[in-house]
Amino acid sequence: MNILIKNASVLFFTEENGYIEETSIGIEKGIIKHIGKIPNDFNYEKVIDGKDKLAMPGLINTHTHLPMSLLRNYADDMPLWKWLTEKVWPIENKLTKEDIYWGTMLSIAELIMSGVTCFNDMYTFADTIAKATASTKIRGNISHTLFDKTRNDNLNFKTTRSLYEKWHKSNNDRIRIFIGPHAPYTCSEDYLKVITNLAKELETGIHIHLSESLQEIEHISKTYGKTPVKLLDDIGLFDVRTLAAHCVHLTEEDLDILMKKNVHVLYNPTSNLKLANGFAPIDKMIKRKINISLGTDGSCSNNNLNMFEEINLAAILNKGITKDSTLIPAIEAVKMATINGAKALGIDDKVGSIEIGKCADIILLDLNKPHLYPKYNLISSIVYSAQSSDVDTVIVDGNILMENRKLTTIDLEEVIKHVKLSSKRLIKQMH
Amino acid sequence: MNILIKNASVLFFTEENGYIEETSIGIEKGIIKHIGKIPNDFNYEKVIDGKDKLAMPGLINTHTHLPMSLLRNYADDMPLWKWLTEKVWPIENKLTKEDIYWGTMLSIAELIMSGVTCFNDMYTFADTIAKATASTKIRGNISHTLFDKTRNDNLNFKTTRSLYEKWHKSNNDRIRIFIGPHAPYTCSEDYLKVITNLAKELETGIHIHLSESLQEIEHISKTYGKTPVKLLDDIGLFDVRTLAAHCVHLTEEDLDILMKKNVHVLYNPTSNLKLANGFAPIDKMIKRKINISLGTDGSCSNNNLNMFEEINLAAILNKGITKDSTLIPAIEAVKMATINGAKALGIDDKVGSIEIGKCADIILLDLNKPHLYPKYNLISSIVYSAQSSDVDTVIVDGNILMENRKLTTIDLEEVIKHVKLSSKRLIKQMH
Repeated sequence: MNILIKNASVLFFTEENGYIEETSIGIEKGIIKHIGKIPNDFNYEKVIDGKDKLAMPGLINTHTHLPMSLLRNYADDMPLWKWLTEKVWPIENKLTKEDIYWGTMLSIAELIMSGVTCFNDMYTFADTIAKATASTKIRGNISHTLFDKTRNDNLNFKTTRSLYEKWHKSNNDRIRIFIGPHAPYTCSEDYLKVITNLAKELETGIHIHLSESLQEIEHISKTYGKTPVKLLDDIGLFDVRTLAAHCVHLTEEDLDILMKKNVHVLYNPTSNLKLANGFAPIDKMIKRKINISLGTDGSCSNNNLNMFEEINLAAILNKGITKDSTLIPAIEAVKMATINGAKALGIDDKVGSIEIGKCADIILLDLNKPHLYPKYNLISSIVYSAQSSDVDTVIVDGNILMENRKLTTIDLEEVIKHVKLSSKRLIKQMH
Repeated sequence: MNILIKNASVLFFTEENGYIEETSIGIEKGIIKHIGKIPNDFNYEKVIDGKDKLAMPGLINTHTHLPMSLLRNYADDMPLWKWLTEKVWPIENKLTKEDIYWGTMLSIAELIMSGVTCFNDMYTFADTIAKATASTKIRGNISHTLFDKTRNDNLNFKTTRSLYEKWHKSNNDRIRIFIGPHAPYTCSEDYLKVITNLAKELETGIHIHLSESLQEIEHISKTYGKTPVKLLDDIGLFDVRTLAAHCVHLTEEDLDILMKKNVHVLYNPTSNLKLANGFAPIDKMIKRKINISLGTDGSCSNNNLNMFEEINLAAILNKGITKDSTLIPAIEAVKMATINGAKALGIDDKVGSIEIGKCADIILLDLNKPHLYPKYNLISSIVYSAQSSDVDTVIVDGNILMENRKLTTIDLEEVIKHVKLSSKRLIKQMH
């Protein structure tokens, strides 16, 4: 379907102030074909009135565990280890494939309704997650979590290989498959070496948790006599495209390694605070020009998938930490949630900004809200004032997934019905 | 109008888990008359169906500068002093009484739409702010800002006295007047002494900025050889009910003084981060049982009036700072936004919780949203998952100010029309 968005303000990273007012976008077969002047012979089946709306690239949530929305608000405000061993892992072990499906569908509904057009996920039952992704037409980068130490979950490379063969670059290339070793403390050195080779063979990337907690740093230091970053570097894992979630506790040497090896840092400000891991050294990463993109983490440690909160928090938290109110100006926070995520995933040639020739992954914010007036600077509005509920319309790959806040590819009532059933059963099983 | 809210989950601070499911509230002449079993002879003109909704006490935003929403997103990401002297103060000096009125109306619309039933404001043209408060039927504690040093604004005690005489305890006691000395660095020692005496004479409280920035600490230390807190204590200002906004930079002695003198701390986590002032020592205040309530600060330094963001940030930020994931459990964050605010304002006998005999300042959250499922723990839902846009209905003093997200006392289109005119004129004047 060809779409004409007219009279909208449109965010461009190439413009000095970040956006142009009252302009048009022509979308042809899922691709952004025209911006500004629309040729007379442009045929479209659908017009979207962009008056009082801001068109911006869809948000890219670069660190999720989608099925964990089923565990949302199940346990909070606990010490990390107790929370994991007594609450999260026991209930996770009771999740069925059905639960995974409906939990993922609930998360995808939340993602779309908060303006996310692409996610980067790591979880078990990844085939089920891919199915939900395909049916809802959102863009997803999916990894099947690999452990070889803490949990005997009988999952191995076969799952990843078949996942890759079945789904990689499928659905008009909306779905891609990465390799998902959980973390340096849950995968042995040898295991990580095999994973690196597998990623090289499949020519895909690695999504891993890295240097998240002080416990991890201590454990790796005791076992290997080095930092987690140094460990992965010595293994050669960073020779493959690596997306490293968290990166909270880093030495100067770690930071230099991440810079030299072009590791992409997936920054999860809310999760890092809520789980009491602390502050990632974002200012030092910025100085080294390390690519930083934003993520929410799972709904169990956030407890939502609201990227507007992460954008805001990234911008204000790092000002507070460094006592520098100029650090991460609004436009940089927006980039962390859009083009930087696309760079991390290696799809910045396709998405992450509104440019002619890119896929139409576009969201419209309804600016006609009390908290968005006056309109002195729409980039500041996005970062410091906007709410996820201001997202009015969501387009992925030229498909309209939400219009006037109505989902088009998800039967929300049906999803909620199943989520209620699953959560009731889980609670019963846990008692 | 008598109101029956039925089938709602209701938040109580007296319950172990924080709430009771499927219960009723009967409101008679603005007062909460029945909870749970409603007598057969209870007459009501209005029924609100609370199915899938959570009734909780209205939020109390204890530090605002309402007219500053007119300056929202006008200038950001700048060094503090440059921002104040080159941007904020010059544009503030151009504000007319008309601007103040419409800016305040815009803010009150935003407050109601995000579940705030009571605010504590400090600004000039306070009489105009009181007028807007009266007409919209929100609850407001209002102070006229007093300076005697940095700005020659010709405002003096007369304004405060007449404000007090005209408005204090008016509108069914929804409006109260405090004295608003701006800060220790903008009011001289003598001036603060006179203010203290005035507050004693009028038997009202003081709302002041305190120990917000390192610049302030340095300035006061150079001028007086002590901390701002010690200065105010020596003046005797704390003998009056004092609401001190920010309190970011405190010594152990300062903390002990705040504790001993029952100073109420108005905590503004977003503003403290955005303006790069840093982290208030909330954990140390909690240990001393200092009363802490939440505020957004003005829309120029936040840039919205969203108390759900402050609740979330208070809970997660302090976990991150202290590396203690059990600090500020969800229920405590909710109290900071409700009953603690009422305590600060000295109206906890009237509002701040849902209890028989208290005024009906109640909000309903619509729980039927993807990001609020499953419903394992509604207190966690409020703090870690909810959005301001989940607020569905707002009742203040028994008056319904919003129902199904429709404002009843504000013509939003009219407000926005005037805000647009004001902001256009201001931008012209600034160029």
